[in-house]
Amino acid sequence: MTLSALARGLNPPKGFVDASMVNPAPDAISLLGGVPATELLPTDAVRRASAQLWDDRDAGRAALRYSPAHGFPTLREWIAAREGVEENRVVVTNGGMHGLTLAVLTIVERGATVAVDDPVFPGFLWALEVSTSQTLPVPVVDDGFDVEYLAERLATGERIAAAYTVPDFHNPSQVTLSAAKRQALVDLAERYDFYVIADDPNRALRFAGQDQGVTAFHSSDRAIHVNTFSKTLGPGWRVGWLVLPEHLVEPVIRLRNRLDVHTSSVNQALVERLFTGYDEIVRRAADVYRERAAVLVDALRSQLPGVFDVREPEGGMFLWPRLTDDSIDPTALFRRVVAGGVIYQPGEYFAASPQRSTARHLRFAYADRTPDELREAVRRLARAFA
Amino acid sequence: MTLSALARGLNPPKGFVDASMVNPAPDAISLLGGVPATELLPTDAVRRASAQLWDDRDAGRAALRYSPAHGFPTLREWIAAREGVEENRVVVTNGGMHGLTLAVLTIVERGATVAVDDPVFPGFLWALEVSTSQTLPVPVVDDGFDVEYLAERLATGERIAAAYTVPDFHNPSQVTLSAAKRQALVDLAERYDFYVIADDPNRALRFAGQDQGVTAFHSSDRAIHVNTFSKTLGPGWRVGWLVLPEHLVEPVIRLRNRLDVHTSSVNQALVERLFTGYDEIVRRAADVYRERAAVLVDALRSQLPGVFDVREPEGGMFLWPRLTDDSIDPTALFRRVVAGGVIYQPGEYFAASPQRSTARHLRFAYADRTPDELREAVRRLARAFA
Repeated sequence: MTLSALARGLNPPKGFVDASMVNPAPDAISLLGGVPATELLPTDAVRRASAQLWDDRDAGRAALRYSPAHGFPTLREWIAAREGVEENRVVVTNGGMHGLTLAVLTIVERGATVAVDDPVFPGFLWALEVSTSQTLPVPVVDDGFDVEYLAERLATGERIAAAYTVPDFHNPSQVTLSAAKRQALVDLAERYDFYVIADDPNRALRFAGQDQGVTAFHSSDRAIHVNTFSKTLGPGWRVGWLVLPEHLVEPVIRLRNRLDVHTSSVNQALVERLFTGYDEIVRRAADVYRERAAVLVDALRSQLPGVFDVREPEGGMFLWPRLTDDSIDPTALFRRVVAGGVIYQPGEYFAASPQRSTARHLRFAYADRTPDELREAVRRLARAFA
Repeated sequence: MTLSALARGLNPPKGFVDASMVNPAPDAISLLGGVPATELLPTDAVRRASAQLWDDRDAGRAALRYSPAHGFPTLREWIAAREGVEENRVVVTNGGMHGLTLAVLTIVERGATVAVDDPVFPGFLWALEVSTSQTLPVPVVDDGFDVEYLAERLATGERIAAAYTVPDFHNPSQVTLSAAKRQALVDLAERYDFYVIADDPNRALRFAGQDQGVTAFHSSDRAIHVNTFSKTLGPGWRVGWLVLPEHLVEPVIRLRNRLDVHTSSVNQALVERLFTGYDEIVRRAADVYRERAAVLVDALRSQLPGVFDVREPEGGMFLWPRLTDDSIDPTALFRRVVAGGVIYQPGEYFAASPQRSTARHLRFAYADRTPDELREAVRRLARAFA
């Protein structure tokens, strides 16, 4: 077997990814995945959109043909209008991970260093391996990615190709990057000649607090904004988008053309027929997730008072409670809880640096669990503490 | 702008790719692309498959969710049965180009040499740039890729990471690799430790002659067999597959998981609902293409007798006539023909080596042109010779 250095650099699943693939006992309640609630997936709207598409012979035929590498013009237009950018800066992708990997392969040199959230979405470290495994972990604090910390490291001579952060409803730590820090981060990128990769899959799912805006990203030629329809219309589409600085559009297109030519015309034709109801689909999802987050927070506070430091999420899919009692062994706890019929992602899987343990945290994904399941999950959790 | 070496190695479109993007005059007849006839695209079958999928709530919901990186088990099973391999060797891709690029990134080291057909499908050279631009051109002769030639080069010490060929209805030169040479090629790969990349998009579209089989590829752990539904069900799906040696399945999956997670669940759910009518769709297409190939060959022979060396295709989408008169300037001819209302791919675009000119050839793609259009194209061509 003769694998390329690139292929040899790709590690097998472990920790987070591995746990995502665990099939828990049939009656276990899974709080593992950042996936939309199945019952919110817009199957009725898709049925109507499908009938509309395939009843229209010309549109149907177009959907079965090649289409531009940048994406359907109408789809790009709609996205651009919502993002407040020129249409030529939007590239349709096969979902968020595809957008991340396109960005990484385009701008991160083999072996270069990339600053990443700490704690970090482990899927990004995984994607990053197509170019490098060298990271500079940057603490995520109450108002997001610690830009000051990064500035200090850069001032002392460290150099990075990119800085990766999840600006809205951070995965795993819930927090949102403040507007001021968004601007400070792109200013830093312009000064030190790196790219910001802003990974924003849950951005549409805000249900409390104040939107911090994306103008900072969209006004800088050093920011790549990554998004997807996976969390709203469903991950099965594999349709997302990038907002790129103009000078990166052609390099990204050259790469994506070679990787997979273009995003499925069938899917783009269907997704754009869901635009009419899109805001309603998103609003309904945000309403449901608001309720679920509240149920989970309330249950934890009432059934396990003082056990966790818990903060109400403002959107997205994750709760990131911290164990307040330092004498609790989180690994032993995880084993007890799984045995008791609940599965979640232990905080240690999200550590970007060995120095800064995230092991005192648990990541609960609440979006695809009903209020009853969430209450029952907390009851089982409470028994594991008893 | 700071691009990675990988991104910097990707050339802008030129020649073939560029010409594929030409928008000829509205009344020009295009013989450019290897694309299925629009009227053969199975829109009615897709309409029925769609209704079936979205009327089934559980199946519809599953289609909107994440699915395995390897592909839908039922889809892989069906493909495996037809290919005569174990299901675990089949990986569902986002079409043929995706399969090629996954193979290249997995097994071709940066800067390594890859033996390629000469003439060659230029899209492969384009894909190959994600790893290398070093090629060893191997002549394509009457019974395909010249395995003897490659053997001699290897015997004199040349080393390659892979050998790329289109075994069935070669693009552009129509020929089919003989069964004996398929075996000889994989024997060589085993002996000299390289991989065969067999790119087979038109394999299902045989309408004459004898199938040369794929057992040689499927019996060797040095052969990667690349296929797609693009030429039968339509390129808009972006669904294809790889048959891999077992030891390459996990490396390819690790890469594809990072590149785009998995092929759209929506598309896989729809494509597998087209299985019932699949053979009929393919048979009908092959019948139509047989007729079109014959019309084109007959028209060339009757209206331009002696001008071309023309051979009847046995399948696929291409005719590769050679100008018999060496005094004709093919570039000037191309200009005259385009001005006269026909566009095709000049042979020079398919040259893999500067030494071996393919400029005396023209590539005519006949599949998506009606018999009347083909006859009219030849009339216009004849006028350009007058």
